[in-house]
Amino acid sequence: MFRGVGDRSMAYDRSTVIFSPQGDIIQLEYARKAVEKGATGCGVRTPECVILAGIKKETELIEAPEKIHIIDAHIAATAAGLQADTSALVKRARIQAQIHRLTYSEEITITTLANQLGEFLQNHTQVGGLRPFGTQLLFGGKLGNPELLLVDPGGAVFKCRAVAIGQNNDPANEILKKEFNDELDQASAIKLIKEALQSSIVSTDQEMIDIAIINSDGIEKSTL
Amino acid sequence: MFRGVGDRSMAYDRSTVIFSPQGDIIQLEYARKAVEKGATGCGVRTPECVILAGIKKETELIEAPEKIHIIDAHIAATAAGLQADTSALVKRARIQAQIHRLTYSEEITITTLANQLGEFLQNHTQVGGLRPFGTQLLFGGKLGNPELLLVDPGGAVFKCRAVAIGQNNDPANEILKKEFNDELDQASAIKLIKEALQSSIVSTDQEMIDIAIINSDGIEKSTL
Amino acid sequence: MFRGVGDRSMAYDRSTVIFSPQGDIIQLEYARKAVEKGATGCGVRTPECVILAGIKKETELIEAPEKIHIIDAHIAATAAGLQADTSALVKRARIQAQIHRLTYSEEITITTLANQLGEFLQNHTQVGGLRPFGTQLLFGGKLGNPELLLVDPGGAVFKCRAVAIGQNNDPANEILKKEFNDELDQASAIKLIKEALQSSIVSTDQEMIDIAIINSDGIEKSTL
Amino acid sequence: MFRGVGDRSMAYDRSTVIFSPQGDIIQLEYARKAVEKGATGCGVRTPECVILAGIKKETELIEAPEKIHIIDAHIAATAAGLQADTSALVKRARIQAQIHRLTYSEEITITTLANQLGEFLQNHTQVGGLRPFGTQLLFGGKLGNPELLLVDPGGAVFKCRAVAIGQNNDPANEILKKEFNDELDQASAIKLIKEALQSSIVSTDQEMIDIAIINSDGIEKSTL
Amino acid sequence: MFRGVGDRSMAYDRSTVIFSPQGDIIQLEYARKAVEKGATGCGVRTPECVILAGIKKETELIEAPEKIHIIDAHIAATAAGLQADTSALVKRARIQAQIHRLTYSEEITITTLANQLGEFLQNHTQVGGLRPFGTQLLFGGKLGNPELLLVDPGGAVFKCRAVAIGQNNDPANEILKKEFNDELDQASAIKLIKEALQSSIVSTDQEMIDIAIINSDGIEKSTL
Amino acid sequence: MFRGVGDRSMAYDRSTVIFSPQGDIIQLEYARKAVEKGATGCGVRTPECVILAGIKKETELIEAPEKIHIIDAHIAATAAGLQADTSALVKRARIQAQIHRLTYSEEITITTLANQLGEFLQNHTQVGGLRPFGTQLLFGGKLGNPELLLVDPGGAVFKCRAVAIGQNNDPANEILKKEFNDELDQASAIKLIKEALQSSIVSTDQEMIDIAIINSDGIEKSTL
Amino acid sequence: MFRGVGDRSMAYDRSTVIFSPQGDIIQLEYARKAVEKGATGCGVRTPECVILAGIKKETELIEAPEKIHIIDAHIAATAAGLQADTSALVKRARIQAQIHRLTYSEEITITTLANQLGEFLQNHTQVGGLRPFGTQLLFGGKLGNPELLLVDPGGAVFKCRAVAIGQNNDPANEILKKEFNDELDQASAIKLIKEALQSSIVSTDQEMIDIAIINSDGIEKSTL
Repeated sequence: MFRGVGDRSMAYDRSTVIFSPQGDIIQLEYARKAVEKGATGCGVRTPECVILAGIKKETELIEAPEKIHIIDAHIAATAAGLQADTSALVKRARIQAQIHRLTYSEEITITTLANQLGEFLQNHTQVGGLRPFGTQLLFGGKLGNPELLLVDPGGAVFKCRAVAIGQNNDPANEILKKEFNDELDQASAIKLIKEALQSSIVSTDQEMIDIAIINSDGIEKSTL
Repeated sequence: MFRGVGDRSMAYDRSTVIFSPQGDIIQLEYARKAVEKGATGCGVRTPECVILAGIKKETELIEAPEKIHIIDAHIAATAAGLQADTSALVKRARIQAQIHRLTYSEEITITTLANQLGEFLQNHTQVGGLRPFGTQLLFGGKLGNPELLLVDPGGAVFKCRAVAIGQNNDPANEILKKEFNDELDQASAIKLIKEALQSSIVSTDQEMIDIAIINSDGIEKSTL
Repeated sequence: MFRGVGDRSMAYDRSTVIFSPQGDIIQLEYARKAVEKGATGCGVRTPECVILAGIKKETELIEAPEKIHIIDAHIAATAAGLQADTSALVKRARIQAQIHRLTYSEEITITTLANQLGEFLQNHTQVGGLRPFGTQLLFGGKLGNPELLLVDPGGAVFKCRAVAIGQNNDPANEILKKEFNDELDQASAIKLIKEALQSSIVSTDQEMIDIAIINSDGIEKSTL
Repeated sequence: MFRGVGDRSMAYDRSTVIFSPQGDIIQLEYARKAVEKGATGCGVRTPECVILAGIKKETELIEAPEKIHIIDAHIAATAAGLQADTSALVKRARIQAQIHRLTYSEEITITTLANQLGEFLQNHTQVGGLRPFGTQLLFGGKLGNPELLLVDPGGAVFKCRAVAIGQNNDPANEILKKEFNDELDQASAIKLIKEALQSSIVSTDQEMIDIAIINSDGIEKSTL
Repeated sequence: MFRGVGDRSMAYDRSTVIFSPQGDIIQLEYARKAVEKGATGCGVRTPECVILAGIKKETELIEAPEKIHIIDAHIAATAAGLQADTSALVKRARIQAQIHRLTYSEEITITTLANQLGEFLQNHTQVGGLRPFGTQLLFGGKLGNPELLLVDPGGAVFKCRAVAIGQNNDPANEILKKEFNDELDQASAIKLIKEALQSSIVSTDQEMIDIAIINSDGIEKSTL
Repeated sequence: MFRGVGDRSMAYDRSTVIFSPQGDIIQLEYARKAVEKGATGCGVRTPECVILAGIKKETELIEAPEKIHIIDAHIAATAAGLQADTSALVKRARIQAQIHRLTYSEEITITTLANQLGEFLQNHTQVGGLRPFGTQLLFGGKLGNPELLLVDPGGAVFKCRAVAIGQNNDPANEILKKEFNDELDQASAIKLIKEALQSSIVSTDQEMIDIAIINSDGIEKSTL
Repeated sequence: MFRGVGDRSMAYDRSTVIFSPQGDIIQLEYARKAVEKGATGCGVRTPECVILAGIKKETELIEAPEKIHIIDAHIAATAAGLQADTSALVKRARIQAQIHRLTYSEEITITTLANQLGEFLQNHTQVGGLRPFGTQLLFGGKLGNPELLLVDPGGAVFKCRAVAIGQNNDPANEILKKEFNDELDQASAIKLIKEALQSSIVSTDQEMIDIAIINSDGIEKSTL
């Protein structure tokens, strides 16, 4: 470890609050490794709805954690990464949404919510004595237009048309890139998301897919 | 230690608040080692009840610690890991249950309680200057449907049908997988849990089994 | 790493609050590396207006982050660096501008705003347990005279006539130096800024340019 | 120290708040070493009373510290380990007992008191910037049934029939195991505890034994 | 770094709050290196006035930072070192001057102001978790007699007749030593300060000189 | 230091809040080294009085620090170790004695006072960011029976008949052991303490002895 | 530094709050090195007055810092060491003296003042995150009897008849030892202090001596 090391980044990755000579926050890159180990999630946005879905790995005696988290009547989320970190963020998102309702007597927009979470995550990459969250969140909601927003462990927020996150997301993203178009209807979007997720399944165990359809009627959650 | 080391994770395991290059919180994995040294515990959920049980290692002059902890009139817990950490968490769980009763004039659900504990545990993996708890909790309760919930030292919460935790839990889990089914009646569940636990006994000392039957009549605790 | 090292600065770069023997705050230089990875931004000041613009890297399914941030009715900003850090600073700038309006019943000057941000950034290079921000901000505004102000990650504020920041900014700055003069009209300034930015485009992907024209009529934002 | 080291635990023992790869809190094991250097103490529980006793090492001009600490009218303690740590814990125990009396107008149970101390000790193994206490406490009391409770430096609490702690406790514990039975009367218990302690005396100096008999009449303290 | 090192101070320079074996606060010496990189400043005191001046390095598109900072109606300052640190200290000086006016209904003396800044700077060399400021301040003012005061990054305050600070100040100081006398009139002082500063110019770029004349009429600022 | 080191304790002595593998708080042992460098002090208890005395090393132009500290009308102290630490503890003792008088309208007992100081010293061995005190205190007082109490840097309190502390205390303690008996009258005690202290004088400089006689008449201080 | 090192203290000098194996606080010894670099100061006490004096090193364009600091109408001080640390302590001493006047309506005694400063300095050697002050203070005053008190960076306070501190103080102290006697009159004391200081002058530059005569008439300050 202390000899002939070509890995110059080694000494810069043990604290979240410092940069490496390359300008990276390496702890954040390690947090993204935790994300890549989490069960695959996926989202697709159509002109009328957002579809969120995630692979649920059933083990024999222990039930798999939910992949779809209802945040408010008009917003759901899927996530990939550490389950306990996800729970903490989902709880925070739910509380923010309720605070917004109580303060302004209206629903929170999906963008406002994602930005609030992003700010909280960014703070965990800048203040000493904390680690970044090992979770990537994908918010889908409809308040006016459907929105699909990706929140990175570092706090960056990205508007998405369609995206897959977590374990082995490359095949799913390839399918999305090839087959997604902006005029998909709800049924095609569901078909696409299933196809994408199934391409990312790595184990031979029976795996289920949790799915949520968010449209003008609210959120409809089911398991395939 | 400083030469020819293949173990790259070495430098990342001395602080709870950082990730290893693989995206793991290694202190948490070490905490799980503490769990694996704790006396074996087990839980089984049937349509009508939850059975919790744990191996109690009697030494000659010192009484073994209780393996069944009553949390509230409808919830009990067994745990594996550091005894002092277990006591701290059990105390916290009891207080949360009472706070819920006083605040809402109703019993806390088993899920709410497990999530509250999970949140507390997650926090101990993210904030500097704390170590994770070296204890895994298994909550069993009946408020409506019977529930069996496993809370990991990292704060993740899992719904279980049947599970064994702690020392040498593999044989017990094997038996559970083979013999558990969702229609067990209470007597068969008790028989199964005893069989599972006995398969995990490692010492030749006389060991007892603490057991709790949680059903509509409340909690019945005994020692076999 | 510990032998035959010519790099004397090595031990001085792991904490933001110390100087290297050369009198540098090396963490700050690493933060500037993060800036140099951010999508290129550019600003030009004319006697009548300020033009801000930035390259927006479209990926197929994920929309690129905005390069123009409206701060107040008379101030906009572009930035290069970490997206989450940028969001945090942009939010802060917006709040400062509103606080000024509410406190003094008048718009904040661009200089006052840039200095307030600079102070906040300087603080992150002097107090332990924080990292510098990995973002360089370019504020453009018109309150009386047009102003173009660059705020460095270290907190220094520079008055600019024209400047490009972020990834591969050298070609853009070369063009600005050659072609900028203080009597440009708005149309020529827009032409110049486009030319400058296009010279800095590194990828062969389709890239767009976000642009803002800030003059007596307010801020006009568009995408080319 | 840094070469050819087989001792993998080396790097994990310099902070109380981290686990070793084996799941141990090594600072706690070192604290137990301090306990093993403290003068031997012993306790025996009979159906009617608890006997506590400890070896008091007289030096010529300096009086040995007390081995029996009266906590309340119905509880006494003996301890092994660092004298100053013992004093701090004994003082805390006395205050807890008085707080209980003032709050509930009744005596504190021996279990409640031991658990309160255990909680305090556990906290010193989990929060950064503190070391564990280097003291093991043995509480004896009678409030209803006689109780003998051992509190470990890590905060674990054990119900005991009879136990010896501190320096060279093995011979004493051997004797206790061989000769203790649950029907001892007070006189036999005193005889047993003396025999046990004398077997653990290591020096040839004159050593005395402090003894306390806790029964329905209260606590009777003497020195043999 | 760990072999054949002659540099004994190496291990003592990574924290501001410790002394080296030679009794030096090495971080402070590094901060002075930052000062020596700052654009040259200069001050001259005559019986009737104080002249402050500084070299302003114009770059083509970015305006050079001001070298003269008005602190109050009767005090100005020039500085050499990190620009953001300078801004922070100048802002503090301005606030202190106004606090004095509001509290005592009179102007702050130049000595009081310099001592207050010195105290603040000293504190940054003694308290952990902070770095010293990388800026040297030169205050000139007239309240009764003209005063020229140098404040070191370590907090020491020196009364000066004439002094040059910052980059390549040796030639300037040589000229001051040779040509300064206590009876200079204002015109000769201005001539001297220009001569001194021009001798310290290192680049071949066009460089300007910011100058301030502080006398009974107040402060007159101009650029040569 | 990094090679072939036999000294296993090396890494455990740089923080007060951790134990060495042997169960020692090594910083405390180093603090005792500071005690052993302090001028020798001595105390003798008789049935009627306590005598405290200490060697006062006169240098030519600087007066030696007092060796006898009056704490209250009935308590004095001598100390060995760091002078500034001694002053801090003596001041604390005086304040505690006055607080006791004001709170309870009676004099503090010597035991209470010594225990309060001991508690304060113990805390400095357990909380991070503090060093232990480098001073050993010897309190003598008469409130009812004469008491002589030794307070160790670690916070342990010892009842003494006669004891010498500080530099070269072995010869003095040898004499005390040989010649002390519990029926000494005041004159013999004074003679004994002088003989003991003189045996410990190491330098050839003229040294004086500060002495205090504490009996029913109060405290009589003189220098021999 | 890391090989064949005989210097065992090496690892113990980087934090103020720990002892070396020899019982020394090495940071304090380094602070004393800073004292030994400060311009020489001197004090002499006579039956009627105290004389304080210090060498003032004039440089050509920068005035030397004052060597005599008036603390109150009856107390002055000279100091050797870091100028900014001296200023901080002198300011503190002045405030303490005024607080005493306002609280008790009488002048502070020289001993009380020196002890208050000593306490403050001691604290800087015991609490983490601070460095000791690099300044030695010599207080002279007359309130009743003349008093000359030396306050060490570690906080120890010494009563002096005559003493020289700072750079090259050996020759001065030799002269004081040889020629001082307790019956000096004021004129002889002034002559002695000049002789002593002149023997310690190391440079060939013109150096002045600041002097203060403190007697029943107050403090008379002049420069020789």
